[in-house]
Amino acid sequence: MEYITLDKAMAIIAAASKKAVDIKTPMNIAVVDSGANLVAFVRMDGAWLGSGEIAKNKAYSARAFDMSTKDLGKIAAPGAPAFGLEASTDHRIAIFPGGIPVKVGDTVVGAVGVSGGSPDQDHAVAEAGVKAFNL
Amino acid sequence: MEYITLDKAMAIIAAASKKAVDIKTPMNIAVVDSGANLVAFVRMDGAWLGSGEIAKNKAYSARAFDMSTKDLGKIAAPGAPAFGLEASTDHRIAIFPGGIPVKVGDTVVGAVGVSGGSPDQDHAVAEAGVKAFNL
Amino acid sequence: MEYITLDKAMAIIAAASKKAVDIKTPMNIAVVDSGANLVAFVRMDGAWLGSGEIAKNKAYSARAFDMSTKDLGKIAAPGAPAFGLEASTDHRIAIFPGGIPVKVGDTVVGAVGVSGGSPDQDHAVAEAGVKAFNL
Amino acid sequence: MEYITLDKAMAIIAAASKKAVDIKTPMNIAVVDSGANLVAFVRMDGAWLGSGEIAKNKAYSARAFDMSTKDLGKIAAPGAPAFGLEASTDHRIAIFPGGIPVKVGDTVVGAVGVSGGSPDQDHAVAEAGVKAFNL
Repeated sequence: MEYITLDKAMAIIAAASKKAVDIKTPMNIAVVDSGANLVAFVRMDGAWLGSGEIAKNKAYSARAFDMSTKDLGKIAAPGAPAFGLEASTDHRIAIFPGGIPVKVGDTVVGAVGVSGGSPDQDHAVAEAGVKAFNL
Repeated sequence: MEYITLDKAMAIIAAASKKAVDIKTPMNIAVVDSGANLVAFVRMDGAWLGSGEIAKNKAYSARAFDMSTKDLGKIAAPGAPAFGLEASTDHRIAIFPGGIPVKVGDTVVGAVGVSGGSPDQDHAVAEAGVKAFNL
Repeated sequence: MEYITLDKAMAIIAAASKKAVDIKTPMNIAVVDSGANLVAFVRMDGAWLGSGEIAKNKAYSARAFDMSTKDLGKIAAPGAPAFGLEASTDHRIAIFPGGIPVKVGDTVVGAVGVSGGSPDQDHAVAEAGVKAFNL
Repeated sequence: MEYITLDKAMAIIAAASKKAVDIKTPMNIAVVDSGANLVAFVRMDGAWLGSGEIAKNKAYSARAFDMSTKDLGKIAAPGAPAFGLEASTDHRIAIFPGGIPVKVGDTVVGAVGVSGGSPDQDHAVAEAGVKAFNL
């Protein structure tokens, strides 16, 4: 059974979009399923054009490693154990905030990726999306 | 001014999805704007996983050449004048039905790409999406 | 000494553009030098978006193999000796008309690539560009 | 309506080239439109061969994120919030000076990318191009 149905993905996107509107920062928002494959994506009007791919890659990265891209950034920083991680695969790995896993209990069942604002804004919008999944 | 706002893109996706439900074939549906950049994408529950990229590439192709991918396929067939078209660029060009331009008058302002069924089904679902734009 | 100076490349593009205007078909036009590297490129207003890369790749292909892409198409057709050529390298090889080498005597010193119309139109516009080089 | 017509793009390139001649540093100069797609490109005689792609990617990056690549570089530096940005997407993102958005009022309608000299020189030449757009 796949937890990230299209309905769930759109609910995540709706909640994330609402947060993006609240903070007045149009965003690119992507949701992937348990296989790290894209289920839904939107680019809000006026959001950075170049951030579409990044939102998708943040969602991919958060599911691929079952942690937020904020945490990935810590372990991939210069001097940290996984420095260079982002260049180690054909998949584009994002190592800055905005990607967060979606969980059922302790199991990661998908992820949200957000890009278009500052790293803190991206993370906050992704968090709003993740919360909607658990309602 | 961009004609393919996110609202318009979601209206296109809603109409295309309805058609997909009608013909009992879950689809991947993508919408691009006038710059051939992705605005919105959904993978309906149960739709082919591998068709996500194809839906996006069909939408890209329909805007890139301002014609349906059905017509692109005719000119890119063996023996036809543009045989080899799909290998002539880094962008992934789809040369089978499912991508249709969205127009305002004679001007192409974006495109829809659909993948998940037979070529005829993909084309029909894309057509339902395009029609919704003009309502 | 490099024959395809920027001035020469712009003269080629000017002549090709004039032909494109004459036949009422806006084009993408690219010029490469003896090293098959891009010297100049223009996308005329209203020209196909997806044909920019193709124009560049036609110019690359015409210099890479020192023959027109029209001739390349003949040897890369199904059943012909180089069938599959276009998929055999990371460089994108165009195997349909629109790319023509630029020569000084028998020596290829660069090439023109044109994309945006029918193959015959592309070839004719490229030819107009090549002629301008020899004036 | 597209603001970056080919005429406008060539005016930008003419002004940027003049600056490049003034500072005796041949440059690669690229201009993209509102969809971040290439409109025109020139490599001045003697300019670095490898900088052609970089000029195009700087122009892409400046439009994709609606800021100069000089500013992008600040937020993508080690320790800065978007460290790793340049590896997070398939598009090649330039994070050093030379790419500058072109604006109409507050709206980014395209961008210029310049490569071939020092970062400061690249930025100055791009700036000369941007100024020409607003004349």
